[in-house]
Amino acid sequence: MGIENRLMKTLKHDMAKIKATKPLIHHITNFVAMNDSANATLAIGASPVMVHAHSELKEILSAASALLINIGTLDDYWIQSMHIAADFADDRIPILLDPVGAGATSLRTMTALQLLSAHRISVVKGNYGEMMSLMGEENAVKGVDSLNVAVERVSELLKEFSMIHNTISVATGEIDLFSDGKDIYFLRNGTEKLGSITASGCMLGSVIASFMAVQKDMLLAALEGAAVYSIAGELASDSRGVGSFRTTLLDSLSTITPEDVMDRINLEKL
Amino acid sequence: MGIENRLMKTLKHDMAKIKATKPLIHHITNFVAMNDSANATLAIGASPVMVHAHSELKEILSAASALLINIGTLDDYWIQSMHIAADFADDRIPILLDPVGAGATSLRTMTALQLLSAHRISVVKGNYGEMMSLMGEENAVKGVDSLNVAVERVSELLKEFSMIHNTISVATGEIDLFSDGKDIYFLRNGTEKLGSITASGCMLGSVIASFMAVQKDMLLAALEGAAVYSIAGELASDSRGVGSFRTTLLDSLSTITPEDVMDRINLEKL
Amino acid sequence: MGIENRLMKTLKHDMAKIKATKPLIHHITNFVAMNDSANATLAIGASPVMVHAHSELKEILSAASALLINIGTLDDYWIQSMHIAADFADDRIPILLDPVGAGATSLRTMTALQLLSAHRISVVKGNYGEMMSLMGEENAVKGVDSLNVAVERVSELLKEFSMIHNTISVATGEIDLFSDGKDIYFLRNGTEKLGSITASGCMLGSVIASFMAVQKDMLLAALEGAAVYSIAGELASDSRGVGSFRTTLLDSLSTITPEDVMDRINLEKL
Repeated sequence: MGIENRLMKTLKHDMAKIKATKPLIHHITNFVAMNDSANATLAIGASPVMVHAHSELKEILSAASALLINIGTLDDYWIQSMHIAADFADDRIPILLDPVGAGATSLRTMTALQLLSAHRISVVKGNYGEMMSLMGEENAVKGVDSLNVAVERVSELLKEFSMIHNTISVATGEIDLFSDGKDIYFLRNGTEKLGSITASGCMLGSVIASFMAVQKDMLLAALEGAAVYSIAGELASDSRGVGSFRTTLLDSLSTITPEDVMDRINLEKL
Repeated sequence: MGIENRLMKTLKHDMAKIKATKPLIHHITNFVAMNDSANATLAIGASPVMVHAHSELKEILSAASALLINIGTLDDYWIQSMHIAADFADDRIPILLDPVGAGATSLRTMTALQLLSAHRISVVKGNYGEMMSLMGEENAVKGVDSLNVAVERVSELLKEFSMIHNTISVATGEIDLFSDGKDIYFLRNGTEKLGSITASGCMLGSVIASFMAVQKDMLLAALEGAAVYSIAGELASDSRGVGSFRTTLLDSLSTITPEDVMDRINLEKL
Repeated sequence: MGIENRLMKTLKHDMAKIKATKPLIHHITNFVAMNDSANATLAIGASPVMVHAHSELKEILSAASALLINIGTLDDYWIQSMHIAADFADDRIPILLDPVGAGATSLRTMTALQLLSAHRISVVKGNYGEMMSLMGEENAVKGVDSLNVAVERVSELLKEFSMIHNTISVATGEIDLFSDGKDIYFLRNGTEKLGSITASGCMLGSVIASFMAVQKDMLLAALEGAAVYSIAGELASDSRGVGSFRTTLLDSLSTITPEDVMDRINLEKL
């Protein structure tokens, strides 16, 4: 069975399960994205919570179904929060790591790599530049934005990365790339407009984490989340500008159906 | 005179007074809600300010007409900010406490209860689960969301809570409940969609705090704020999805009239 | 050549250069405005980054083309971040200072004045009240909002301020005022609605900083940024309320053309 068919078989069930069970998604994320990520999580039907205080991390995590760690606005206290939370989540619930700005500063690259080596991270999702930086390729990032990198080079390294770190890896760009260490998958959905608003990648993280809460196969969860998010973007893409697109994207996330995904999905195993 | 009539007598005056005097509402609130709460405060005509630095709290409070304390994203420094601010506000200006996530972690429950016992809090507003937690009922909260609890049980405890803490209490849910320790009021307005966006309860807090700045009767201020907010929600409820609803809710808050409230209000004393 | 003609000569080039080169604008800004400022920066075509951790400031700044410092939600750590960043930016890239709430508390007034005296600040942009406070005029601010002050008095002091601090100064209000220490410029564009949403002044700062990244003449950069932002506001001004205006303002910022500015600009040298 092809990957598209496999995904369509589980997607309807998983979307319904998110809406029915409203899994709690614990976010330790950046100040810029907090509000957008909370709304994206709600739009897909899950329940967001943002907690960083050391003394309450474990209590919140006890009720959570997935942990999202996003390093977009770091400082020492928050880095500790990430480790405390990941330590507790290990073996209990899946963890998604979003290495925002890895490559832009050594603090970010190091923080992401330390989280990866110290904990069982189920999914790592960054843009081409961020993922390349984690794979030791320099000069691929400006600020928190990815520079042009060849798809072939990224997917090659991505597979290795997944193997070494025993994780599902996702590299977003013109084509979204996925690897489980054995295979590589290409998702050709989305719209340029997803790059025109802030926190777009962060919201994708929230959507993937919501699927990780209900789908045990982490590759499938990553593919489901990315397909739903990218196609919600497509459905919103005739918006007039940056403001409307952001509004309509949240609308689409809250109204998208498995059939919308089926109609538009362009996913293949390499 | 029934409570609806009493409220309609003051509402027109109080809405106009907010717009005319633009009272400063000092917020110590969470990172997720800051932007939305600032816009909700502006939409209703008041003037928001967000300050947490210990060294400037008193100066800002000297110019403020109400203090809103929301414990949505806590840490030690911010908890101190809340106590310093509440200490100074005591006997000067009314304080609203929004115990976000009380019951989800002991840090939150304890922080809310300590604020309540150490300071004169005029209004406490939470959802059913949060309010139940403050009343010693456990297992009523998941993350920052309320679980199903019987209205009868909540309103019974709410009256006791108001009496003990000498405060107006508000419990939001399918029916919004209010008590001054003597009576219980039911507000049957609003829309399910208010639960579909993040920071919805936080914005309600901002609107109530704006009324507290101009209306000396705290029960009336709480009822006015909740009625205006819930009915603004109703006026926005035919939005397509999460994004549009959020936009239209702010539109409605900035254009709602006393007549809109009069036409739709469903408030009764139990 | 009049200032309008001078500006129109460079504006088309500078708008295109922002979109072509996507200059990185390093923001150290407040929690309320972060998301809006990031979107405004993206809408105009530049690339925002928000970093405050001391250990990564220099690395991020090495790739940045302008630094924006906004003191809207201060505390000790962030004040240090501002000084470390400004120290490094000095003589490398232009710095914009947005003294949010100066005059409301001495911490803010002092922080702004210390930044001004310790570093080479290219542009200072505040509302009438904030700028008056920095010029030693008290009682001009309530919270973070400006009270009524005579335009003549502001522009007189503004010229002196620019001379003393060797900076371009911008005072926003019913008429936006600009001085380079020699002359005063009046910009009569914009809409009242810009005052109806939070972070409006902060977004203006982001747009001006984006022009500072591509235009060496800092007076011109400030005028370009303010003209584009104010006229984007005009183009959005028939929105229904606070929520729609915010959405449409971002739309306008992402679609506005040099011709739109030419058609509507009302700028003169006093």
